[in-house]
Amino acid sequence: MKEYEIGSGQIIRRKGNGSLEYHRDDLTIEEPLEIRIGRKTLATTMRTPGHDEELAAGFLASEGIVRKHDEIDQLSRPDEAPNRENIITVQLAQGMKVKLGSAKRFGTISSSCGICGKESIAAIRQNFPPIVSAKDVRIDIATLLSVPALLRELQGEFTRTGGIHAAGIFDLRGKPKVVREDIGRHNAVDKAIGRAFLDGQLPLDRHVLLVSGRASFEIMQKALSAGIPIVASVSAPSTLAMEFARESNQTLVGFLRPPSFNVYSHIERVNLS
Amino acid sequence: MKEYEIGSGQIIRRKGNGSLEYHRDDLTIEEPLEIRIGRKTLATTMRTPGHDEELAAGFLASEGIVRKHDEIDQLSRPDEAPNRENIITVQLAQGMKVKLGSAKRFGTISSSCGICGKESIAAIRQNFPPIVSAKDVRIDIATLLSVPALLRELQGEFTRTGGIHAAGIFDLRGKPKVVREDIGRHNAVDKAIGRAFLDGQLPLDRHVLLVSGRASFEIMQKALSAGIPIVASVSAPSTLAMEFARESNQTLVGFLRPPSFNVYSHIERVNLS
Repeated sequence: MKEYEIGSGQIIRRKGNGSLEYHRDDLTIEEPLEIRIGRKTLATTMRTPGHDEELAAGFLASEGIVRKHDEIDQLSRPDEAPNRENIITVQLAQGMKVKLGSAKRFGTISSSCGICGKESIAAIRQNFPPIVSAKDVRIDIATLLSVPALLRELQGEFTRTGGIHAAGIFDLRGKPKVVREDIGRHNAVDKAIGRAFLDGQLPLDRHVLLVSGRASFEIMQKALSAGIPIVASVSAPSTLAMEFARESNQTLVGFLRPPSFNVYSHIERVNLS
Repeated sequence: MKEYEIGSGQIIRRKGNGSLEYHRDDLTIEEPLEIRIGRKTLATTMRTPGHDEELAAGFLASEGIVRKHDEIDQLSRPDEAPNRENIITVQLAQGMKVKLGSAKRFGTISSSCGICGKESIAAIRQNFPPIVSAKDVRIDIATLLSVPALLRELQGEFTRTGGIHAAGIFDLRGKPKVVREDIGRHNAVDKAIGRAFLDGQLPLDRHVLLVSGRASFEIMQKALSAGIPIVASVSAPSTLAMEFARESNQTLVGFLRPPSFNVYSHIERVNLS
């Protein structure tokens, strides 16, 4: 399987001058990935094929189902399922108990959660305590301003298809650690975090997460699960993302479009001098 | 409750000239909405408050749980729940049976679905047959080119917050029927379809759905559930969206950025002369 497959289709394009022509268009592939723990389906997500093991690992980590990489014994395709390329089976380490309740609903908070805003945040913080980071965990403005161009450079697909999100993890000097793409923003983040998780590198307490789209509550939550103290987004954050960041001791940067940006929380990690 | 509440927060903004200033920023509100059938939670989605009844109705319709507006008796807030503004309780008409299995996972296909691509599409088509539309269901290029500006005009929020999606339903002459916004693309579509559903106007077999973002599989599926024959997106569709549109007899227009656009399926509904 190629890293990121591209589908193509014969389409009809209306050009700027009004003429119509046949055309081949590269599209971002979207297919379901079923994540199983043993034989039980945990979640199905619509994703762009590639780095499926990382996606599964990142999902498990960000849902608090696993905390350390040695809690996962194996990530594999089932031997004989008819669509094995769209299934990842997770074998947990012996003795690991699964709290499936907290992961019942992929892409949303638990279905049994009838609480909102602050209370919801409180419930999540029981799983993931606020960031505790050293005083020297700071990023220079110049570094912050440099990462969006770097992300675009490392992200090959978007320019071709225009339909894919990217997530990149950088160190405090702006050096990229991992960049992943997916049609779903959360999946891109899960893949990036999943890679670091599988390499035994969590918590990423001296790193920055940059997302190509908006910063929602879920993105902040996933970053927190990986211990990431600084999250930057090239677009808008939501109210809940901001509240969550303030209470979780995360620095949230939005509309990071050099030379300008907004800081929504914990500006003390941005080196202003 | 205001139609669309805007949150604001004291933030720090770095301006183009490098100076920093305190600033108030309008952010799109993101909060969970729990959709209940009677006392049972069906789904929780992160949404922008406002038009919650429409969102619930549109969700039920697009999941195939209800087919006609008289199958819903009542949409209301619970009387005494602590966060009643984030809960909608659906009272189904007497005798209605709920197929909760098909709606277990909001925003993704069913968690028990271990099938992919074509097979997955086949499974969905059992619920929603392909569009059957009259020969005169056609749209002029000029009309198609006019709707994106109209959507932006009717969408007040985006220019303020930059973080919200819009979905608009237009007739074949380009006259807007309903425009809704939400932090989640699917929610915006559910709200727009939900409005039409509650007004007893489904199927929308002489209408166009325009979405401000990308066209994913789920958007096409929601459109199909409402009988909408033409879907236009200002951005990229996915492979699965295109395949789904071709097999569901839906016209899919992508990258609708006047004066150009792409047609990915069933161009016979676009009046080329």
